[in-house]
Parts: sequence; C-alpha cells; structure tokens
Amino acid sequence: MSYSLKEICKKIGVEYSGEDRSVTGLNTLADATPEELSFLHSEKYLRDLERTRAAAVLVEERFAERLPEGVIPLVTEEPYLKLALATALFAHRVSPASEPPVVGEGCEIDPTVRFGRNVKIGSNTVILAGSYIGDDVVIGENCLIHPNVTIYHGCSAGNGCIFHSGAVIGSDGYGFAHTRDGRHVKIHQLGAVRIGDEVEIGANTTIDRGALGDTLIGSGTKIDNQVQIGHNCIIGENCLIVAQTGIAGSTRLGRNVVMGGQSATAGHLEIGDFATLAARCAATKSLEGHKVYAGVPAMDIRLWRRQQAALMRLAKGKRS
Amino acid sequence: MSYSLKEICKKIGVEYSGEDRSVTGLNTLADATPEELSFLHSEKYLRDLERTRAAAVLVEERFAERLPEGVIPLVTEEPYLKLALATALFAHRVSPASEPPVVGEGCEIDPTVRFGRNVKIGSNTVILAGSYIGDDVVIGENCLIHPNVTIYHGCSAGNGCIFHSGAVIGSDGYGFAHTRDGRHVKIHQLGAVRIGDEVEIGANTTIDRGALGDTLIGSGTKIDNQVQIGHNCIIGENCLIVAQTGIAGSTRLGRNVVMGGQSATAGHLEIGDFATLAARCAATKSLEGHKVYAGVPAMDIRLWRRQQAALMRLAKGKRS
Amino acid sequence: MSYSLKEICKKIGVEYSGEDRSVTGLNTLADATPEELSFLHSEKYLRDLERTRAAAVLVEERFAERLPEGVIPLVTEEPYLKLALATALFAHRVSPASEPPVVGEGCEIDPTVRFGRNVKIGSNTVILAGSYIGDDVVIGENCLIHPNVTIYHGCSAGNGCIFHSGAVIGSDGYGFAHTRDGRHVKIHQLGAVRIGDEVEIGANTTIDRGALGDTLIGSGTKIDNQVQIGHNCIIGENCLIVAQTGIAGSTRLGRNVVMGGQSATAGHLEIGDFATLAARCAATKSLEGHKVYAGVPAMDIRLWRRQQAALMRLAKGKRS
Repeated sequence: MSYSLKEICKKIGVEYSGEDRSVTGLNTLADATPEELSFLHSEKYLRDLERTRAAAVLVEERFAERLPEGVIPLVTEEPYLKLALATALFAHRVSPASEPPVVGEGCEIDPTVRFGRNVKIGSNTVILAGSYIGDDVVIGENCLIHPNVTIYHGCSAGNGCIFHSGAVIGSDGYGFAHTRDGRHVKIHQLGAVRIGDEVEIGANTTIDRGALGDTLIGSGTKIDNQVQIGHNCIIGENCLIVAQTGIAGSTRLGRNVVMGGQSATAGHLEIGDFATLAARCAATKSLEGHKVYAGVPAMDIRLWRRQQAALMRLAKGKRS
Repeated sequence: MSYSLKEICKKIGVEYSGEDRSVTGLNTLADATPEELSFLHSEKYLRDLERTRAAAVLVEERFAERLPEGVIPLVTEEPYLKLALATALFAHRVSPASEPPVVGEGCEIDPTVRFGRNVKIGSNTVILAGSYIGDDVVIGENCLIHPNVTIYHGCSAGNGCIFHSGAVIGSDGYGFAHTRDGRHVKIHQLGAVRIGDEVEIGANTTIDRGALGDTLIGSGTKIDNQVQIGHNCIIGENCLIVAQTGIAGSTRLGRNVVMGGQSATAGHLEIGDFATLAARCAATKSLEGHKVYAGVPAMDIRLWRRQQAALMRLAKGKRS
Repeated sequence: MSYSLKEICKKIGVEYSGEDRSVTGLNTLADATPEELSFLHSEKYLRDLERTRAAAVLVEERFAERLPEGVIPLVTEEPYLKLALATALFAHRVSPASEPPVVGEGCEIDPTVRFGRNVKIGSNTVILAGSYIGDDVVIGENCLIHPNVTIYHGCSAGNGCIFHSGAVIGSDGYGFAHTRDGRHVKIHQLGAVRIGDEVEIGANTTIDRGALGDTLIGSGTKIDNQVQIGHNCIIGENCLIVAQTGIAGSTRLGRNVVMGGQSATAGHLEIGDFATLAARCAATKSLEGHKVYAGVPAMDIRLWRRQQAALMRLAKGKRS
C-alpha cells in the first residue's frame, strides 16, 4: 500500500502544500523509515523527534522546528487524532475471500477450517474444526490447533505450538484517539502477532496485534486459559502466564517470568528475567528480575506479608 | 406467545380459580402492561406494587391486599420461584432452523456463517467465517463481524460496529430462583441486547441478554477483550471498558465512563458521567461522575493513595 | 493403549534392565493399579509410596527402598520430568477424523456441528451451529448446546445441561515439568471432564480436563460467563460460580458453595459446603463451610469489614 503525502493530508484534514512524497506506512518516530509517516503524541518522545528519519511527522506547531532537516512537518493541533485517521488508510482490508493454503506434508486439516489468502502451514500440523486462519498467516511444523481457534491476518507461529479452543490471536489492540467532544476514533492496528516455537496458548486466551510494530511471544512460553495480552507486548522465552492474567499494552516480560493466576501488569513496563508475580499481584511499575512479588501495587513478597500481618493486627484492634 | 392466566397457574403450580385473562408476557411491576404477569420479589418494590398495571401479580398473601383494584393477586409463598417457572413458558425456542437473511447491498458474508430465521443485515456489512447470527437479529450498515462471533436471537446492533472473534452477544443472564432444598431454578432470560452505532466489542467479550427488559450498549462505546457485562446493564455513550472488566447485572454507566483493566462494579449501581475507575478498582456503591476512583471498595483515588501510603508505613514498622 | 515397561523406559530415557511388564496407563501412587506406572514428585506423598500397588514407580534413588515388595523402582534424578515425557506416550491422538454420532430421538443438530468418533447424544438434545464434540464424548438428554461450543474428546455431561457459546470443556490443564535450563515440558492431560445433570455453563467459560484423574462438576451447579476451572477440580452439587471467577487445579468445592464475581481459590484447597466467597475474594487456604468470606486472602467477612474500617481510619489520619 502506498499513498502520496498530499493524498493522505487531504483525507485526514491536514493542510499541506509543500513537496509531495510517497508514503508506504506509519511508524513511531524512532522506527520510521524515509518512506513512512510519523507523529509526536507526547513530549516524552521529543528526543525521538529530533532524530527521526520519517518522511513527514504530524506535529503541533510549537514542536515543528525541532524536526531534523528534510523531515516534513505536518502541523496540526491534534496529531494523535490525525494519526488515527491515517491508520484507516493503511488498514488491512478484511474480507471472506479464501484460497487453499500451501500445506506441508503430513498435515491433517478439518474440512470446515477456513483460510484467507496466502496462508502457509508447515508439515505435520493438525487443525481442527471451525478454526479460522486469516490472510498471510504462517504456521510452522508440528503445531496443533484445536477447534474454534481464530488467527487474524498477518500473524505467525513457529514450530510445535499448541492453540487451545477459543484462543484469538491478532485481534485489534485497544487503541483510540479522542475528539474534544468525547468520541473515540479507532487507531487501526497495523502490526501483527509473532509467536515463537513450542508456545502453548490456552483456551479463550486473547493476544492482540500490535498498533504499529508487532506483539511478540517468545519460544517456550506457556500461556494458560483466559489470559489477555495487549498490543505490542514483548513476552520473553519460557515464561509461564497463569489463567486470567492481563498484560497491558507495550509491556515487556524478560525470560522465565512467572505471572500467577489473575495477576496483571500495567502498560509500558519492564518485568525482569525470572521475576515471579504471585496470583492476583498487579505491577504498576517496572520490576527487577530474580525476585518474587505480591500485592497491589506489586511489592517484594516479604514486604507484602508484613503488610498483611500489620493490617490483620489493626483489624483485630491490637497495637500495630 | 400468549397463554391464559389459568393455564399459566396450572403449569407453575399456583392455585387460581377467578376470572381468566390472556397473558402475553412477564414484566416488572413498574413496566408491566395489562396483558402481562408480574411478581413481588422484595419489599423494596412495594410502591411499584401499589401502582402496577399488570394483569396479575405473583405475591405473598401478606402483600396481596396492597394491589390496585382490578389487578389479580396470584398468592404463593414463593413468588420468585413461581416467576422462574413462568419464564420457561415464554422463553424463545432455540433451534437450528435457518433461513437466508435479508441482506443490504455490498455485504460480504462468508459461506460458513449460519443464520437463524428472520435476520436482517444492513448494507456493506462484512461477516467472517464461523459466526452465528440468531433468529430475529438486526445488524446495521458498515459493520464488521470477525470470525467465530456468536449473536443470540433477538439482539441488534446499529451501524459501524465491530465485533471481534469469540465475542458472545445475548447469552443468558445469570438468574436463578432457589428452592428450599438448595436447588437453583433457571429464570429464562426474555430480554435481548441492543447495541448502538460505532460500538467496538473485543475478542471473547460476553454481553448477557436482559432478564425481562434489555441490556443496552450506548453508541460510541468501545469494549476491550474478555469483558463481561451482566444482564440489564445500561452502558452510556462513548464509554471505554478495558480488558477483563466485569459489570454486574442492572448497573448503569453514564456517558464517557472509563473502566480500567480488570475493574468491576457490583450490580444495580449507577456510575456517573465521566467517572473513571482505575485498573482493578471495584465499585460496591454508586459513584458520582467526573471523579477518578481506585481501590476495593472504590474510593476517591487521592484517598486510596493515602491509604496505600499509610499501609506501607505500617508494614515498614513506622508510626502511622 | 499399552506399552512394555522397557519400551517406556527407553523412550523417556530411564535405565532399566529388570523384568518386563505391560503398562496400560499412568496414575498417582494412591490410585495406580498393578498395570499402571506412577511417580514420586514430592516427599508429601511418601506414605502413598509405601502403599502403592503400581507396576513401577519413577523415583529418586534415596526413596527407592521404601517401595513395597513387587513394585519396580525406576530410578531417576528427575521423576517429574520423566513422568511428563511418559504422558506423551499415553496422550489421545487428536485428529479431524469424524463419524456420525449415535443420536437419541428428538435431537436437533445443526449440520455444521462437527463430531469426532464414537460420540453419543441423548434424546431431545439440541446442538447449534459451529459446535465441536470430540471423540468418545457422551452428552445426556434434553441438553442445549449453543453455537460455537467446544467439547474435547472423552468428556461427558448428564441430562438437562446448558452450554453457552464459546464455552470450552476439556482443554488441557496447565501442567508442566521444568528442565534445569528453564524449559517447560508438557504433562499431557490424560483425564477428562465429567459434568452432572442440570448444569449450566456460561459463555466463554473454560473447564480443563484432569491431568490423570478427571475434573468433576456436580449436578445442579450453575456456572456464569468467563469462569476458569482448573484441572482435577471437584465442584460439588448446586454450587453458584459467578462470572470471571478462577478456581485453581485440584481444589474441591462442597455443595452449594457460592463464589462471587471475580473471586478465586488457590489450588489443592477444600471449600466447605454452603461457604460463600464474596466478589473478588481469594482463598489461599481451605475454608470451613457455612460461613461468608471476603478479602484477599479470604477471611471471615466481619473481620474483613473491620480491616477495611481500620484501614480507612488510618488513611484519614485518625488514630486506629
């Protein structure tokens, strides 16, 4: 997909009369190539703005002069809202169009499975009834996809993965820009989900596709039922994520992180290698690895135990 | 559907030998028409009892005399249990019967999609593989229904809605009457789910149909993955409901309410316009609008922060 | 399925050169028959070891001498990891193979429903579009299976059960052995799910199959939406389990237990008859019956109220 910069500006309602360019996609300031459009949404990213290689950037007037030479400022009072409108132009056009996948040797695929276009399935993979595999999906060898799994367009999985029934891979991340009168404008989610080898995904678990980049699930990670993983999360290798856990968008888990049942993290955090969060624990800040955490907000489990004990003494009317 | 009052009484085991009437449905005391049967379940509704226009009311003997003239008392020691039995008579008869829907121009519908009877789909709506659209469902224009969505009979959605995979709309609300020996008798859920325009519903989210009236989702509301909305909730316009949130039955959200991830409300509450509940917050009482809440039970977020700080001092052995 | 002991040892990498035997399955020390292989995973089970009737036991050298006479010790430094490898040998081979089920009178089954082999459906049961019923499943009479339900191989349900859309019955329990370098080896789940009569299972609820024995759901129990029940749980009769609750593996609920919305139990607990856990309550220890609990960890609800009150005084700066 490709648009001229002027065409984009016209469609999203930004005035621009300078030099035209061809734009092939949207990206963050840090990752944008000279063929991509970017945006400045928060002052946190001013340093990225000053170094971006993007073709053009949606930006408030006050920050426009900080752009590197040669990068075109597209001045707007609402860069995030304009970005949202631009994502619609680059969104995958979902349709029921179907074509036979390229299938390796030894696969067993139920005749009710529906495929989009350009799907590749590795050898000895088994796919059961009612599952849906979207456009451009690539599945490795020796995978087992139980009934009624949905894998949206553009996602991929490595070898030896197991998907349990009702799992949804690649649904849209939850991203909206907001108008001044309180409406929410969809940021179409242009990334995908990339899953490593030997990953198991539990029944009715949902993993959202990335907004611009991808959501990544490391090899050897085992995810239980009804887990929710937000857009652009990066889950390390060999993590254990127990049932009903929620990991908010853009959070990174290191390797061998353990998330107990019904635990959670806020978005944009880093959870270090070999960290363990007890059941129901909720991380609101980044956490060092090789430690055990509990409570809300997450704290060292020993501190949490003292807190619980103190609270219990208090409730029983004893001096704390 | 219509029954004579005597027929109903015979089937649910209530003695009645007076004048017969035709009954076309069940309803609350406040909303019942002169063709409907109602019930008094709790003394909270005595004022409604005194004003009801129902044809007849299942009621304990001690309250029967408070009924308005012309409304027939059906005296029973267990009005709620008898109501439950009566709901079975009016329940929709679910079956695999299918007929081609009435479809607007420009729709794209996967051939594996199954329709009940009397379905209407607006123009330019796309429905992907494995989805099920029950009897009498009405879907508006420009909607996108991803694979493996289920919409039960009688529900409706406006224009521009997006349903992600695994979403279930119109499953039965969780309602039971209880026998003296501890068994639970199903209250068949006779309402539906009505969804406005531009609503997005996340993967594996569930929205239950109403018990008597409907569950309502206001236009512009965006619901994330794995959210549970109970029967007879009324969700205002432009709300944001983040993943794994649960909203118990009959709760009303105003407009632009934000429910953070894994948050919750108890049932029968009112959450005011522009209220924000932080992640994991749980409302046990109604909450004023235009405020930010956190904690369990929900409190002003500043108070919650003080509580957390006090608790931390306590755990660390400092004087509070 | 049956293997010789030497064949198993060769495949899982355990040295054994003694007498050969035929092994038909895997089981716990307490339940193993003389045709089954067992394992000692934790010193907690030493008493079971001393009484086991198993054909052979995977065991560390230091405990091998405690085996009863005639039971063969299979000495290994990693008995749990070897067990995991052995489960793969006995796992059901999932495939898309389908054959028409044996169906009672008066059933209505949508033509898109997919059946494995050897399925039995009782009379007057209705199964809607897109549901999947695996090999060897037995469903009773007068059941209603809504669209897009998945029931894995070997599971069963009694009469009068209702399954809502997206429910997944019999997905693999979350069980792994761990290697020294931090990888997780699947313990194939060899049990099933057995559901009694008049059970209702909510939309997108997941119930995992047992690891060795079965997961059991007692008659009359009503389960709301998005509930997760782990492997080998035993749920008593007439329980009420409200939405988004999670019950970890091997926990037993007595009869008429009530689990409020978003509540939870840890694994391997006993919750007594008629216990009520309030919404969001999380049991970390076994709980006596006939009491009401709240909080995290679960405590008597009156104590929890005092705790909340003390905490609120503290936050407001009053003397506790």
